[in-house]
Amino acid sequence: MLTGKHVAVIGGDARQLEVIRKLIELDAKISLIGFDQLDEGFVGASKVQLEDVDFTTVDVIVLPVSGTSNEGEVETIFSNEKIVLKAEHLKDTPNKCNVFSGISNQYLKKIVQESDRKLVELFERDDVAIYNSVPTMEGTLMMVIQNTDITIHRSNVVVLGFGRVGMSVARAFHALGADVKVAALESELLARIYEMGFEPIELSNLSNEVQETDVCINTIPARVLTANIISKMPTRALIVDLASKPGGTDFRYAEKRGIKALLAPGLPGIVAPKTAGKIIANVLSKLLLEEQNNIEEEQS
Amino acid sequence: MLTGKHVAVIGGDARQLEVIRKLIELDAKISLIGFDQLDEGFVGASKVQLEDVDFTTVDVIVLPVSGTSNEGEVETIFSNEKIVLKAEHLKDTPNKCNVFSGISNQYLKKIVQESDRKLVELFERDDVAIYNSVPTMEGTLMMVIQNTDITIHRSNVVVLGFGRVGMSVARAFHALGADVKVAALESELLARIYEMGFEPIELSNLSNEVQETDVCINTIPARVLTANIISKMPTRALIVDLASKPGGTDFRYAEKRGIKALLAPGLPGIVAPKTAGKIIANVLSKLLLEEQNNIEEEQS
Amino acid sequence: MLTGKHVAVIGGDARQLEVIRKLIELDAKISLIGFDQLDEGFVGASKVQLEDVDFTTVDVIVLPVSGTSNEGEVETIFSNEKIVLKAEHLKDTPNKCNVFSGISNQYLKKIVQESDRKLVELFERDDVAIYNSVPTMEGTLMMVIQNTDITIHRSNVVVLGFGRVGMSVARAFHALGADVKVAALESELLARIYEMGFEPIELSNLSNEVQETDVCINTIPARVLTANIISKMPTRALIVDLASKPGGTDFRYAEKRGIKALLAPGLPGIVAPKTAGKIIANVLSKLLLEEQNNIEEEQS
Amino acid sequence: MLTGKHVAVIGGDARQLEVIRKLIELDAKISLIGFDQLDEGFVGASKVQLEDVDFTTVDVIVLPVSGTSNEGEVETIFSNEKIVLKAEHLKDTPNKCNVFSGISNQYLKKIVQESDRKLVELFERDDVAIYNSVPTMEGTLMMVIQNTDITIHRSNVVVLGFGRVGMSVARAFHALGADVKVAALESELLARIYEMGFEPIELSNLSNEVQETDVCINTIPARVLTANIISKMPTRALIVDLASKPGGTDFRYAEKRGIKALLAPGLPGIVAPKTAGKIIANVLSKLLLEEQNNIEEEQS
Ligand SMILES: NC(=O)c1ccc[n+]([C@@H]2O[C@H](COP(=O)([O-])OP(=O)(O)OC[C@H]3O[C@@H](n4cnc5c(N)ncnc54)[C@H](OP(=O)(O)O)[C@@H]3O)[C@@H](O)[C@H]2O)c1
Ligand SMILES: NC(=O)c1ccc[n+]([C@@H]2O[C@H](COP(=O)([O-])OP(=O)(O)OC[C@H]3O[C@@H](n4cnc5c(N)ncnc54)[C@H](OP(=O)(O)O)[C@@H]3O)[C@@H](O)[C@H]2O)c1
Ligand SMILES: NC(=O)c1ccc[n+]([C@@H]2O[C@H](COP(=O)([O-])OP(=O)(O)OC[C@H]3O[C@@H](n4cnc5c(N)ncnc54)[C@H](OP(=O)(O)O)[C@@H]3O)[C@@H](O)[C@H]2O)c1
Ligand SMILES: NC(=O)c1ccc[n+]([C@@H]2O[C@H](COP(=O)([O-])OP(=O)(O)OC[C@H]3O[C@@H](n4cnc5c(N)ncnc54)[C@H](OP(=O)(O)O)[C@@H]3O)[C@@H](O)[C@H]2O)c1
Repeated sequence: MLTGKHVAVIGGDARQLEVIRKLIELDAKISLIGFDQLDEGFVGASKVQLEDVDFTTVDVIVLPVSGTSNEGEVETIFSNEKIVLKAEHLKDTPNKCNVFSGISNQYLKKIVQESDRKLVELFERDDVAIYNSVPTMEGTLMMVIQNTDITIHRSNVVVLGFGRVGMSVARAFHALGADVKVAALESELLARIYEMGFEPIELSNLSNEVQETDVCINTIPARVLTANIISKMPTRALIVDLASKPGGTDFRYAEKRGIKALLAPGLPGIVAPKTAGKIIANVLSKLLLEEQNNIEEEQS
Repeated sequence: MLTGKHVAVIGGDARQLEVIRKLIELDAKISLIGFDQLDEGFVGASKVQLEDVDFTTVDVIVLPVSGTSNEGEVETIFSNEKIVLKAEHLKDTPNKCNVFSGISNQYLKKIVQESDRKLVELFERDDVAIYNSVPTMEGTLMMVIQNTDITIHRSNVVVLGFGRVGMSVARAFHALGADVKVAALESELLARIYEMGFEPIELSNLSNEVQETDVCINTIPARVLTANIISKMPTRALIVDLASKPGGTDFRYAEKRGIKALLAPGLPGIVAPKTAGKIIANVLSKLLLEEQNNIEEEQS
Repeated sequence: MLTGKHVAVIGGDARQLEVIRKLIELDAKISLIGFDQLDEGFVGASKVQLEDVDFTTVDVIVLPVSGTSNEGEVETIFSNEKIVLKAEHLKDTPNKCNVFSGISNQYLKKIVQESDRKLVELFERDDVAIYNSVPTMEGTLMMVIQNTDITIHRSNVVVLGFGRVGMSVARAFHALGADVKVAALESELLARIYEMGFEPIELSNLSNEVQETDVCINTIPARVLTANIISKMPTRALIVDLASKPGGTDFRYAEKRGIKALLAPGLPGIVAPKTAGKIIANVLSKLLLEEQNNIEEEQS
Repeated sequence: MLTGKHVAVIGGDARQLEVIRKLIELDAKISLIGFDQLDEGFVGASKVQLEDVDFTTVDVIVLPVSGTSNEGEVETIFSNEKIVLKAEHLKDTPNKCNVFSGISNQYLKKIVQESDRKLVELFERDDVAIYNSVPTMEGTLMMVIQNTDITIHRSNVVVLGFGRVGMSVARAFHALGADVKVAALESELLARIYEMGFEPIELSNLSNEVQETDVCINTIPARVLTANIISKMPTRALIVDLASKPGGTDFRYAEKRGIKALLAPGLPGIVAPKTAGKIIANVLSKLLLEEQNNIEEEQS
């Protein structure tokens, strides 16, 4: 339990509600900043203005997935007020206060460093990335069903990359009856691809393997779907690019060739905000509980 | 091959293009009625007006999935002209001329009977229903992903009915990691449900099994989702009703209880018109080829 | 509950112990005939000699899977005494007494008819056949792993027949990564084979589809693996014939061609006697409970 | 192609035949040492005695999976002669000559080092371990089917470890319908376990999760199945220990408790020697071809 812990939850979207729910379950004391328009009442959580928070009592700061903007602004869909997080706020906190966000940027890193606090970027964690690969995969399924005139079943699917997202995506399309090829570099990934029933492609050989592609799903954050590769695909092919912006596709060339190519960022928050929120809530609370246990052990 | 066979394709939507393509492949002589606005040219198929067709030379008539309206009108998305099929047309055809449609109605049955021809309702066939269960299943996945805020993975799914559609739907949700229960009447269906890794529910016991339902998919064309059953579901549940109109759900009660319930007819033509067209094309051509073989065998 | 019901369990093997266990659970009164060497004590079941049974009090007779021999002898592995069931025994029972066995023969049918009782052959039931298809499938896996020098994963498997056993077998080999073809006659079976991700073969076309076969599993109780078909297989192929004796394989020809062919009857009792026993116990008790409910309803 | 390359294959079992076959396919010049009793003739491979080999012409030395004994002896099932590999042999070879084995030991490492050659232990490679996880998994299935009286389907299976073998094993049991729990330490493994549809167990919490275990499969090469854990299992449980000798099980305690526990080393060579041989052949030849390409590129 987190009894006695004071957590400041600043901004966010539907996902943050799951975080709040979990923290309440664990009996934390919660201040909600940027939630004034939230209808739902949370017993045990009080809505406050940023300027009214006594940061000297705050043990944990929880930012939204996006962290802050480069000007320090914290996004929230539950308030119209502008919320800017500053180094001063952090400096006021007790030494052990940690800051949690999904991703971060220069600004956030700077203010955390300046105030000598610790920043935990949850989306950098392998476990979070794997849990998130599930809603990402389902969003991909949805997009493919919507944007093709054929079934996934018995279609020719090529997945690029076999990391945390690629494995989940390949497994799902295969489970629905597609013929799945997966392109990767390392020999042990190619071995696992083979073991899982997909056809392994050496990435260097990709251009010879896309002639019959109905759907190509990219998870590699590098320019892998070059004009050369795209020129080998049939025009009926659909490209769904999951890699973080700007994706790995030569979108200009795809359009020229008449191939539909879609960049699809942020799927978990779009197709399954509740599950995406629970993922964050679970990992965050696990980390907080572990930290607490460590402190208790040290003290005893 | 269907060399020498004269097929009149009357009306339809994108699915019919696959039928035409297949018939051309098989070297049939094709008259297209109601396709004047079709851009795509088909070598070997000529666009004609209904009144210009010489039905005495027509060996096969292919209607759209919907057959005719109760006034004899044949739907087409490739023409603005009104096309009405009459008994006279059929009477002109050679004795052996068969009429193919997806489904039929009183009008169509009557004119076929009057003219002493044979009507083949393709959608009544088990094989067609099973092939169509695949795009139906994918459309269902899409709707569920769109209309819930959680992932299918690890959700509680209840499928009602384990016929041609129910089996495909249950398999897909299970393959994506859902906990799947399936409700059916017969003991052999319950046994297969168990073998396939789903939890069998006796339909009579349904009301005790829906307390934790996230998604309920109905394939039984009878009022099974009564107010009583729906009242036992959590309000977060989503109902997707696939059964032919009016579905098996008490939609009025679902709305009252605040449960989202969607009637989702005609999914194959919506989410995968090309695959849906190929299904028709394959079965139709197989039937035509078999008939031809039979005639040749009789003659030899 | 079966309180007050008197069940005579006559003979059997390990499977019958599960039946006894279940009946005790349901509070039946049980007489065990042919179990004198059984170490395990069952509270609520008494071991008796056939001649000491008062059949006028017996409500249900449970025979082993095999029923009786053609001389009326009932097999048991728990006794050395010879047990012969006769029409006289049955005639003594109350009118409503039913006889349960797995399969039956002329003798058993005759004595049941003579005494005007009802015989239930559990193995004729679709649900029992489907439940049993699971241990049958696992036994088949075991035999294939033992009798080949390659993995099932990525091997070429042909399954003949897509009934209760064929579907379970095809699903399992596919799940383990084999390329699975399934041969059947009916168009709706071919459609389901396709939907499930296997390659459908029309049985009439089998001879053209076995050139690359590593493993062929027959479930069709008819001579389908003829010399002609076997001659098209590579000599490395393994045939496992599950169909009831004498199987569907030309074993003489297979041997001549140097192809290993195994007839594998009775797998459930061999590889999973406990599960096989539970299958019988569950269905038997469900039938007894239903019967009881019906009687109670009639009486009320 | 390996045209012109001279490969000395020294000793081995059935797996080595696949290696020889592959090398011949690639047009290598092959000397077979320790194969005098091999019936099968390989065109392009000549059987020689160790003392007759001109090692100054040997480009590659291929040892069996086991490498050598600690006295330098090389196992072979195709000869009765004793073959001892010595540093002298290696010293005679050209500088670039590499030595391939499955595993190695002090002796082999020493003579390779003394002669300044390179040793490649194929079984240390991730890709080889993953490919081998497939026959290992199938051998495990076979053992479990043989050694239990229930079906894998719907049984409670606990897999310890989620590395190269653990993942393949868990996937297979799940695919056959078992309820699979997997125990691991790292949070990202636990996340993948969850994504794949298994129930994740923190290894530290194992003792609370084995009460209902029917089958426990260990892949962790450390003493994880302690008396404490085993004491929590039901006596019906079966333990299959795949970890390299001495396994991770307290076998003495398991026996005392009446729990069957089997140490099962070397499954790939036992249940699928041909596939196991092809795995070695494929990786070996890929490495030789890559090396050759590198040399050619350097030279050009
Ligand atoms: N659209 C969405 O909603 C969504 C959701 C989640 C994640 N994402 C994005 O999807 C991408 C993949 O995420 P992930 O978690 O799967 O990452 P990951 O685990 O790091 O996997 C990336 C894969 O790409 C390969 N790769 C990386 N750089 C490469 C290069 N230059 N050349 C060839 N291969 C390369 C990696 O191979 P190695 O292992 O050999 O490096 C790995 O197979 C990221 O950009 C992530 O931001 C998008
Ligand atoms: N939405 C779409 O896009 C779409 C696409 C295809 C089909 N459909 C519709 O979906 C429905 C199912 O199609 P299908 O091909 O799966 O049909 P099906 O094979 O006949 O299956 C229907 C299932 O419902 C059961 N059932 C029928 N009447 C029942 C009753 N009164 N009480 C209890 N159970 C009953 C059947 O059990 P028994 O076998 O015991 O009768 C069977 O399990 C139909 O209405 C069809 O028109 C919709
Ligand atoms: N070895 C064992 O341990 C074991 C265990 C269980 C069962 N069995 C045996 O396995 C066999 C199959 O059992 P099952 O329960 O799967 O039976 P089933 O459900 O009747 O299936 C038999 C299959 O064979 C087809 N078939 C039957 N006769 C045919 C013929 N003359 N030509 C072409 N196809 C034909 C059926 O097609 P249609 O549906 O079109 O007729 C069906 O696909 C039986 O002989 C049974 O006794 C053995
Ligand atoms: N019986 C056979 O026929 C056969 C065939 C192949 C392999 N094997 C043997 O099977 C074993 C597993 O092989 P593998 O290729 O799967 O190895 P692996 O990929 O290294 O996997 C081992 C697993 O055990 C975990 N682990 C290792 N040491 C641990 C410890 N002290 N405490 C807790 N967890 C620990 C690892 O977790 P981390 O990743 O966190 O370290 C990993 O999950 C090896 O002993 C191998 O020799 C046997």
